[in-house]
Amino acid sequence: MRPRARELGLEVGMISPGKRNTISDVKGVRVGHCTIVRGEGKLIPGKGPVRTGVTAVIPHAGNIYKEKVPAASFVMNGYGKSLGLVQVEEFGVLETPILLTSTLCTWKVADALVQYMLDENEDIGVTTGSVNPVVMECNDSYLNDLRGRHVEEKHVMEALRKASETFEMGSIGAGTGMVAFEFKGGIGTSSRVVEIEGEEFIVGSLVLTNFGRREDLTINGVPVGLLLKDYGHRKSRKTKGSIIMLLATDAPLTHRQLKRLAKRAILGLARTGGKSYNGSGDIVLAFSNSYTISHYGREKLKLEVLRDSSLNKLFAAAAEATEEAIIDSLLTAETMIGRDNHVVDALPAEKVIELVKSSSIS
Amino acid sequence: MRPRARELGLEVGMISPGKRNTISDVKGVRVGHCTIVRGEGKLIPGKGPVRTGVTAVIPHAGNIYKEKVPAASFVMNGYGKSLGLVQVEEFGVLETPILLTSTLCTWKVADALVQYMLDENEDIGVTTGSVNPVVMECNDSYLNDLRGRHVEEKHVMEALRKASETFEMGSIGAGTGMVAFEFKGGIGTSSRVVEIEGEEFIVGSLVLTNFGRREDLTINGVPVGLLLKDYGHRKSRKTKGSIIMLLATDAPLTHRQLKRLAKRAILGLARTGGKSYNGSGDIVLAFSNSYTISHYGREKLKLEVLRDSSLNKLFAAAAEATEEAIIDSLLTAETMIGRDNHVVDALPAEKVIELVKSSSIS
Amino acid sequence: MRPRARELGLEVGMISPGKRNTISDVKGVRVGHCTIVRGEGKLIPGKGPVRTGVTAVIPHAGNIYKEKVPAASFVMNGYGKSLGLVQVEEFGVLETPILLTSTLCTWKVADALVQYMLDENEDIGVTTGSVNPVVMECNDSYLNDLRGRHVEEKHVMEALRKASETFEMGSIGAGTGMVAFEFKGGIGTSSRVVEIEGEEFIVGSLVLTNFGRREDLTINGVPVGLLLKDYGHRKSRKTKGSIIMLLATDAPLTHRQLKRLAKRAILGLARTGGKSYNGSGDIVLAFSNSYTISHYGREKLKLEVLRDSSLNKLFAAAAEATEEAIIDSLLTAETMIGRDNHVVDALPAEKVIELVKSSSIS
Amino acid sequence: MRPRARELGLEVGMISPGKRNTISDVKGVRVGHCTIVRGEGKLIPGKGPVRTGVTAVIPHAGNIYKEKVPAASFVMNGYGKSLGLVQVEEFGVLETPILLTSTLCTWKVADALVQYMLDENEDIGVTTGSVNPVVMECNDSYLNDLRGRHVEEKHVMEALRKASETFEMGSIGAGTGMVAFEFKGGIGTSSRVVEIEGEEFIVGSLVLTNFGRREDLTINGVPVGLLLKDYGHRKSRKTKGSIIMLLATDAPLTHRQLKRLAKRAILGLARTGGKSYNGSGDIVLAFSNSYTISHYGREKLKLEVLRDSSLNKLFAAAAEATEEAIIDSLLTAETMIGRDNHVVDALPAEKVIELVKSSSIS
Repeated sequence: MRPRARELGLEVGMISPGKRNTISDVKGVRVGHCTIVRGEGKLIPGKGPVRTGVTAVIPHAGNIYKEKVPAASFVMNGYGKSLGLVQVEEFGVLETPILLTSTLCTWKVADALVQYMLDENEDIGVTTGSVNPVVMECNDSYLNDLRGRHVEEKHVMEALRKASETFEMGSIGAGTGMVAFEFKGGIGTSSRVVEIEGEEFIVGSLVLTNFGRREDLTINGVPVGLLLKDYGHRKSRKTKGSIIMLLATDAPLTHRQLKRLAKRAILGLARTGGKSYNGSGDIVLAFSNSYTISHYGREKLKLEVLRDSSLNKLFAAAAEATEEAIIDSLLTAETMIGRDNHVVDALPAEKVIELVKSSSIS
Repeated sequence: MRPRARELGLEVGMISPGKRNTISDVKGVRVGHCTIVRGEGKLIPGKGPVRTGVTAVIPHAGNIYKEKVPAASFVMNGYGKSLGLVQVEEFGVLETPILLTSTLCTWKVADALVQYMLDENEDIGVTTGSVNPVVMECNDSYLNDLRGRHVEEKHVMEALRKASETFEMGSIGAGTGMVAFEFKGGIGTSSRVVEIEGEEFIVGSLVLTNFGRREDLTINGVPVGLLLKDYGHRKSRKTKGSIIMLLATDAPLTHRQLKRLAKRAILGLARTGGKSYNGSGDIVLAFSNSYTISHYGREKLKLEVLRDSSLNKLFAAAAEATEEAIIDSLLTAETMIGRDNHVVDALPAEKVIELVKSSSIS
Repeated sequence: MRPRARELGLEVGMISPGKRNTISDVKGVRVGHCTIVRGEGKLIPGKGPVRTGVTAVIPHAGNIYKEKVPAASFVMNGYGKSLGLVQVEEFGVLETPILLTSTLCTWKVADALVQYMLDENEDIGVTTGSVNPVVMECNDSYLNDLRGRHVEEKHVMEALRKASETFEMGSIGAGTGMVAFEFKGGIGTSSRVVEIEGEEFIVGSLVLTNFGRREDLTINGVPVGLLLKDYGHRKSRKTKGSIIMLLATDAPLTHRQLKRLAKRAILGLARTGGKSYNGSGDIVLAFSNSYTISHYGREKLKLEVLRDSSLNKLFAAAAEATEEAIIDSLLTAETMIGRDNHVVDALPAEKVIELVKSSSIS
Repeated sequence: MRPRARELGLEVGMISPGKRNTISDVKGVRVGHCTIVRGEGKLIPGKGPVRTGVTAVIPHAGNIYKEKVPAASFVMNGYGKSLGLVQVEEFGVLETPILLTSTLCTWKVADALVQYMLDENEDIGVTTGSVNPVVMECNDSYLNDLRGRHVEEKHVMEALRKASETFEMGSIGAGTGMVAFEFKGGIGTSSRVVEIEGEEFIVGSLVLTNFGRREDLTINGVPVGLLLKDYGHRKSRKTKGSIIMLLATDAPLTHRQLKRLAKRAILGLARTGGKSYNGSGDIVLAFSNSYTISHYGREKLKLEVLRDSSLNKLFAAAAEATEEAIIDSLLTAETMIGRDNHVVDALPAEKVIELVKSSSIS
């Protein structure tokens, strides 16, 4: 993993990041990866080469099914296979870890996640209802043998097992085979700390980037992609690909408010040059772990939530954290050679820093 | 399969049904089932007894991926795991057969459907994009070992392979283990023929019924459920369960108009006593196969669609066909004994006919 | 006002109504009407005859702007001009009384409501933001000179001023010129009392009925409309018209839960024969006055709300109260002669009772 | 009106604008303003000072009610009173000119628009249905006596009457009293020309800007607002205010596709620093006048529409035109003194150009 933006002296936005500047700055959130890289050369559909993986985001340390978290989604562009959103929207809760993976593995991964949930909860399907796995995806077929659907149950279990407050970014886990702005993309993360009425709250973002034309890439307002348009190898399929954006917060919000928060991730996406092209599944899922909703129990829920008039800083934080997470996904990812010897170059960090700094106003 | 409503002399609604009074009256639509029944007695989670299956609805005779059909969904109550709706709503098309199955098998079944689509389309994931499988579900855990997830790829392939214009109803396919109004539910279907500006159009409905308290059941306005409240065995979980409603039509409609049509299925549901309880996933998917949208091709689409002011008869047809399909799912299903020797009685057809007729005004 | 269903011995549904069986059984809710009837004979557009009015529903006894109530809407069919729903959906609150009126008066009425709100709140537009009036409508043009737009500010003020816990139904207020199932429609109301975890809650419904073909009318399952198809005068425009459904409750619900509740009103509508025809604006607004959200203040909101798993009885109550409210709007309304000497007959109550009773099972 | 961005040598985006670089580059679209400026000094609520107006956007040269245009809306943040969106979403059409105005005048303006429509269409409310006026708004209370609601019917008629292919921008019409990024905002417009499969299409944007904190303003990636944070007078209410974005195109799109287009305006908004703060009504309305849908007529609609896979350039065009329209609203608006002698400075164009140029990479 290469250095992140702030390690390179590049600051994004006006709000301070959290301690680690990751989604796990939201206490209790953990992230785990399983990376699958095998073979090289010409694509033999079903055989390889393999450049894929799975990433797990766990919302809190307890039993997620028994203690659900409030959640909401926003679909900016629905060219995507994301699973579980219908129920998230109806009940306003998330009851499993969120998994990210390669498009055609989505359902296998969901099935493995269900197995994981069944193993953790003996009551599901016997004395209580079913479970709603949330799995989101991007298409890594430029580097990966997509049709091979190489993610297996063991990989899912590994990602879940390895979940930790500290985790790698870039070409790892679900990000392994992803391409963004015709550079190497993948997993990025960032966070923001805001103070509301004397209390501190964190908004963390984790993105899986796999979208954008080279020319669209903008970093801190500088048209970096345009300036690097002849750099290295160019990918052919320019407007395909997607981005999954996850937001976590410890601010106490309702489903309706989390949906409002989710929409603001799009503002961060736009600032990096995201255009929500036709073939791009641009989907946001936001959750709060400031309180949980128990699976059992009949008594009323006691909530203490922020007012809508207090949300501005959280909105700005969601946009900024997402913007920086996207940039970090590019800066940390490393050059990868995959299917049919396709080369996807890492974003040249030094050049980028030089370009951004030279255009700054002193 | 027991006799259907009209075979018993029971007519529902005011509009005439199509030739077969099935969803396959819409030319090109085919339905196939695979039924899985194994073991009996006490539930051993993961082992059985098995009372489940899968049902496939194929929208037209050609390659669905290459020639997509316009489609839309409506979620009345989103306690459901239905897959593929995000993309259906964005692009307004359906590009795979629709599969119905048991809740915890949803993702396995989707994975098998993807394999089927890959086998049919060598370009997916290699030279073109991915595929969006649509799978919908109800929870058959009162009769079935839900956690065993007994539907396998071979069962999916069988349902797809067996798809035909003529097909069985009741306790079959995905309907095998379903319970509705505390009677045996399952698959039901019906159709309506309407004339609009001198042209005939068909609306077909196919439902998977697994919802409702006994007391709620209403047939042709008669509170049959209330009148039969002490009949046979009563199921304990009264307000759980779901209903999936599929609408097919040969009327040329846009996505927006199909969404309007989908909403009207709820009116039919309501007339049978459906209450959309909290734990019920009440979801409608409507498609038209009057025209297709090719996967490839860049030229403009030429459409010839009905005006909104011409839709009233289609709306009424969608409501009526859904109402009758629900009733037929009950009348055709047979008594089943499953998990833990749970007995779910077939709706006693003769009694029902007697009750309905004695309350009619001559 | 003619007798209501229960006064005639007709019970709808299985849940008990509240004390008055009106929306004002929800403590604090008040309803006021202003009825405008002038002239007769041939329509002179802009002059008359006038058969219209306005109805006000006030959610609680305090300052609604300063103490907003949680609210949500559901649009079953959006052929309607309802005002204010965009903001209700974003913030989940209602901050004015709800006014019902004649379609082309909607904006004048909203303007008058804004004036009322300005008069009550000197800070609006000076030291604080604006105000979001909620006005809903049906089209009374079969009896009324719609183009004349005869509702004036004074009528709005009268309806607001007269708001009371006791109020009339039928051909009154906004209901004055309305037609439902080709009988005289108008204002109807009903309520239900449910017990949840040892606590009593009320759901009240108030409807403005102006929809439906004669043949569609169903009362307690009996196809009354079909049986009365040759009764009296028939209206020509059969599938136009709309229904506005308001739900009030003292159950503590969030916006998301109120939206779920609002959807269930449609189930009641369907049971009366409602078909949501193309030209019908079928719109529901639900609010709870169990808690309020103050306009000013920065501290967190403390909420104590019901769980989703406790909502089933409220859902059934919303459906039943709406069903009965629709029937009461027909039973209480009186025959009216209006524009161009159009006669709209009152639903013949005795005949209806006879029909319903003779089809009941003893 | 001061010079526009391109007159100052400032180019926004990568796609070429149309001939006039206005929304009226879409043939048939016309824009008219009525500006109301009266009095000065201390606010006397209801009396003045007045700094407000109304702007009309007319979608084509014919009778809009009789020949409706396909349309769709997207609500990014619903703190707004926009009227007519419910029906636009149900039927997918616009049937009146679009009016923009001051928040508390919204309903009066709608009422005047209805009168205009009635005058143009004698059948409305007599032999045919009603009409759905679309009026959108921002809150000009920092400069204007909002409570006075000074827009009258005659002003609406003037704006409609004056509608022309050429029109002014900045502090005019509905833009008269608006404030954006704590500089003077108002009306801005821009357009883009794209080629799709050998055919040229135009996307035009017209915005009413009244949103944003000073520090958020970004022009071509340069944090101009931050750099000018001490310039001139600063407005106190930093996060209130709204933006209305209208998109017109001559590309043949369905309602669903126009909704997709509408969403992309948000990407342009984000690039100027828009944060969709809690109190900001950020609402987009998109229409196409490439075909019309006649009010009467029963025969099928023959449509020839673009495929979704052809929309990328239109999406980028919508984002870019909106971005430039926002910037032009700032550059063309002139310093205004209003209510309570509040001064809102014009964005200092020369300084801005200097800042943007000095940060460019040569």
